[in-house]
Amino acid sequence: MGEDLSDLGEFEVIRRLLARLPPGHLIVPPGDDAAVITTGQATLATADLLVEGRHFDLAFSSPADVGHKALSVNVSDIAAMGGKPRYAMLSIGAPAATPVSVLEGLYDGVGEAARAYGVTVAGGDTVGADELILSVTVLGEPGAGGVVRRSGATVGDLLCVTGELGGAAAGLFLLRAAGSDGAARVLAERFPNLLRAHRRGNARIREGEAVAVAGARAMIDVSDGLLADAGHLCERSGVGALIDAHEVPRAQGVEEVEEWSGSEGIALAGGDDYELCFAIAPGDLDTATRAVAPTALTVVGRFVEGSDVELSGAPAPSTLGWDGFR
Amino acid sequence: MGEDLSDLGEFEVIRRLLARLPPGHLIVPPGDDAAVITTGQATLATADLLVEGRHFDLAFSSPADVGHKALSVNVSDIAAMGGKPRYAMLSIGAPAATPVSVLEGLYDGVGEAARAYGVTVAGGDTVGADELILSVTVLGEPGAGGVVRRSGATVGDLLCVTGELGGAAAGLFLLRAAGSDGAARVLAERFPNLLRAHRRGNARIREGEAVAVAGARAMIDVSDGLLADAGHLCERSGVGALIDAHEVPRAQGVEEVEEWSGSEGIALAGGDDYELCFAIAPGDLDTATRAVAPTALTVVGRFVEGSDVELSGAPAPSTLGWDGFR
Repeated sequence: MGEDLSDLGEFEVIRRLLARLPPGHLIVPPGDDAAVITTGQATLATADLLVEGRHFDLAFSSPADVGHKALSVNVSDIAAMGGKPRYAMLSIGAPAATPVSVLEGLYDGVGEAARAYGVTVAGGDTVGADELILSVTVLGEPGAGGVVRRSGATVGDLLCVTGELGGAAAGLFLLRAAGSDGAARVLAERFPNLLRAHRRGNARIREGEAVAVAGARAMIDVSDGLLADAGHLCERSGVGALIDAHEVPRAQGVEEVEEWSGSEGIALAGGDDYELCFAIAPGDLDTATRAVAPTALTVVGRFVEGSDVELSGAPAPSTLGWDGFR
Repeated sequence: MGEDLSDLGEFEVIRRLLARLPPGHLIVPPGDDAAVITTGQATLATADLLVEGRHFDLAFSSPADVGHKALSVNVSDIAAMGGKPRYAMLSIGAPAATPVSVLEGLYDGVGEAARAYGVTVAGGDTVGADELILSVTVLGEPGAGGVVRRSGATVGDLLCVTGELGGAAAGLFLLRAAGSDGAARVLAERFPNLLRAHRRGNARIREGEAVAVAGARAMIDVSDGLLADAGHLCERSGVGALIDAHEVPRAQGVEEVEEWSGSEGIALAGGDDYELCFAIAPGDLDTATRAVAPTALTVVGRFVEGSDVELSGAPAPSTLGWDGFR
């Protein structure tokens, strides 16, 4: 596997890794005590901590996949505010026996995502740890439609999602089962889009800003699963929601995986899709639909009096989202 | 030990922890996809990842100590740029069996430090992990003296430090030895300041801005040890430095610990003090000294032609700073 981290030492590792990132627009680049970045008067800030075996598995994803996804999930939080990502701080903890090539792959993926999203990696930290850990903070700025919070949904608003759901969860199902289940292997070969949805993620920056401009009143990204994340909008907005299970757009192959696995509701409760879920007045729907094209926009329900998410057309799935400690 | 994290679940844990932090000046508070913070045109950003057993040990420090120190080490990086800290993003990874009281203690310490440093905790993440991990990003703004980088030292500048050195490393020596060594226990009782220096850290915000205004040309905080950190200034500035070991100010009790341990050079090579080390023209020294008072300012050497740090008055210590992977 080549050199490991203990062969090189911290400073040489950092030097090699920084060379893999795109150059950015920094007043003071990485290597000083702090980065100096240019920002507007308001800054959006979000952070996620990803731990091997919990949030990613190098048996299922390449190091570059993991690096790409680590940045994507944070950029997605900025997109869900209608904002534009600008800078990232990336800290990595890794066992000393980690091959340097693994960290180089992680940074290649971070670099690819940084280029795609227009993000500059402004700094971070690299330390020893018992397990592989990525900690990412992304800073952004409000988009042309201003900041869209979770709390603005009102009764009568439509509940919409971008793209298709369930792909990431279905992909993870297949990756976990493919070692022992021939049918899973067949499905995995037939629907590589599902594996990719799990491995990479894809933050909807353009769409987030577009629906904000079109008048979205509350927004969240689908990281915990549609039902859980729609529930977050309800809780913050003080409203309820009705979701029609038949209207929920499923990624290609999700129905086949639901049928094979017996896990109904992958598209309803599966997390990690990083599509956007938002509230919009019926009169603004056409504008929003045109604004996000060619990405699909689907009405999956509406906001009502109440405080809970009610589902019609299917039994409620047994797992509603993700809990980090259980 | 009371409830553990798996008893409560992620959302309840987060709710309890956020209640322990001081309220801040956030446009959008924690709980949405991203925080919205107000910033100036330039933002300073720094990040550190701290791992139990490597960067802290709950056998030696209380959870509140660890939380306080996690914020302090990042705030210190802002201070070392002459800047003022404003916001922090705090992510924590913890095993499910962690008592909730441990996380509450961590947040109490973070909250205490946040109040002392004028920092608002704007967001973060809380996830499961095999070991206890704290990931902190601090955002700040340039102080009245502008941004002081590592790269501005010139030949003829004086090499100065604030406060006293060696306290944190001496304290850690004593804490590690006190279980089996009576002399270490006696020293630990005699010099509680050393234990506190290891456990808490104390970022020099006021002093960093003051010496920047007074004309400091390059600055770093002493986290890797004086010789290593002075070396970073030399490397970035393209100069060498001569340090007189006799001039290095030692925290009360450090000489006794050096003598007891046989580890000469704790004050020269021991890290984690978070004092400031900077370059200043001889003509600006008096101004700087008055500006940082009552904190001590000591000239420990000067910058010369060359590229290395040379030490006079003592043999070079065998360990030169900290390497995260070894």
